[in-house]
Amino acid sequence: MQDLDEFTVTDAALAQMEATASPRLKQIMDAAVRHLHAFARDVDLTPEEWLQGIQFLTAVGQACTPIRQEFILLSDVLGLSAVVNALHDRKARELGSQSSLLGPFYREGAPALPLGAQIVHNPTAPEIVLYGTVTDNAGTPVPNALIQVWQTSERGLYDLQEGHGDVMDMRGNFRTGADGKFHFRTVRPLGYSIPMDGPVGALVHRQNRHGMRPSHIHCLISANGYRELVTALYFADDPNIGSDTVFGVSQSLVVQAADDPASPLPGLQAVRYDFRLAHAAPGETGRVGADPSKLAKAAE
Amino acid sequence: MQDLDEFTVTDAALAQMEATASPRLKQIMDAAVRHLHAFARDVDLTPEEWLQGIQFLTAVGQACTPIRQEFILLSDVLGLSAVVNALHDRKARELGSQSSLLGPFYREGAPALPLGAQIVHNPTAPEIVLYGTVTDNAGTPVPNALIQVWQTSERGLYDLQEGHGDVMDMRGNFRTGADGKFHFRTVRPLGYSIPMDGPVGALVHRQNRHGMRPSHIHCLISANGYRELVTALYFADDPNIGSDTVFGVSQSLVVQAADDPASPLPGLQAVRYDFRLAHAAPGETGRVGADPSKLAKAAE
Repeated sequence: MQDLDEFTVTDAALAQMEATASPRLKQIMDAAVRHLHAFARDVDLTPEEWLQGIQFLTAVGQACTPIRQEFILLSDVLGLSAVVNALHDRKARELGSQSSLLGPFYREGAPALPLGAQIVHNPTAPEIVLYGTVTDNAGTPVPNALIQVWQTSERGLYDLQEGHGDVMDMRGNFRTGADGKFHFRTVRPLGYSIPMDGPVGALVHRQNRHGMRPSHIHCLISANGYRELVTALYFADDPNIGSDTVFGVSQSLVVQAADDPASPLPGLQAVRYDFRLAHAAPGETGRVGADPSKLAKAAE
Repeated sequence: MQDLDEFTVTDAALAQMEATASPRLKQIMDAAVRHLHAFARDVDLTPEEWLQGIQFLTAVGQACTPIRQEFILLSDVLGLSAVVNALHDRKARELGSQSSLLGPFYREGAPALPLGAQIVHNPTAPEIVLYGTVTDNAGTPVPNALIQVWQTSERGLYDLQEGHGDVMDMRGNFRTGADGKFHFRTVRPLGYSIPMDGPVGALVHRQNRHGMRPSHIHCLISANGYRELVTALYFADDPNIGSDTVFGVSQSLVVQAADDPASPLPGLQAVRYDFRLAHAAPGETGRVGADPSKLAKAAE
């Protein structure tokens, strides 16, 4: 039997996991153990700091509820979610529009609305119009694509945060026409802070980060035969456009509302965005990020 | 604004954490983010696997209670606790006896017993004696050192597991005499499985590990002016002596019970072990591992 030091413990742990039945689980846990041990050695982690880490992770787990997923929030603010998204995009056979984080506020069963409808029940800010065409990568329009959109109000709150969640608001599901076109009305959403009242918020606070996400509209676009596109459009003039706390912004997703004579509702400020869908591999949905129904299950 | 890929997200996350007030927190979180991202890239982590990881960590956090710390168990079975212990030992100005894991079953306020006492209330296995001398590293006896010992019964259960925790059993606190010597009676403890009914047990099961700790007696030794020694003695003939699930065994901590005419109780099989204490640096306690009262707090 060999005496273990801070390096040979790693070999011993890998040896004990050698008989893992699933090769993929083995690969993932081997890498997790190597990086975890290397992290502790790199920073010369003390027992007191180790205990603080245990306490932090315990608090994160215990902050999770059926409607709050603090571990996803931790993954988001540490940039891990964005890394996983980027890896997922890189592996696609072809790329459509860029993806962004799904976030925790997606809801299934939002109202199906006719093109041109207003998704905000009682707007108190100027209406704007979002319009464009859904195409494949060759520019061919995709008719009858489902466009699900959701956003915060002009006060920076989702319906789940403004009300009790019983009324769906600031969301709507649209279908593109035979020409692949869509348009709907909304108000400009306000950027907002991630939840700062939990352990992740306390960490972000200690890191002197603002904790803000820039103003954005979430879009989930799907059509038969295409890779599902989870993305969001970000408003260029938001003060936090360059420092999104969860690293969701890409240049190609930044938009501006402006006068636009080509808009289908020319009296309103308009955002035009054309979404490109990639063809799906057989059996692939391409969903990026988490299925909220699974998230609720994780916290039960 | 730069578009982020799976590498530049790391730079962006480090940049956002740049203003962290505590240099040590910054150092630790920088390393955590670098290793976390590198782990995801190394294994090309998919969104589905990421979600499984989120669900696993959430379940670990939610399995924690005031008397169960599943995150420490996770740290133990992944070898992280042993790495932290080894780092702690390496930094000591001088080394006494080797340390081992404190574990979650230490209790303060165990009965103070006279030398020679039996720590097991109703032994159903042959008595053995554990004896030796506590010295400093030069071999000078340390009088009046406090030796706290705790162990499982001959059935492999701690008092907290056999009873309701209201009676302290299989534990005792002794003081060395003027000559630094101690001895007490016990029974040979049985090795045992870590708790397998939680998410960590499920992982260990999927890794085809036995989940066993070899038979051992915990010892926490302290004396004024010396570094606290948290260690354990392991029985050589336990079948799992070479594959402790939590990597706590060192060769120098392996003992055997044998006939021993030099024993203070020569009719019984005896284990002799001489503990060496290192001198403490000013203000140092040298406690390795976790303070159980803090652990309970972490789970509340």
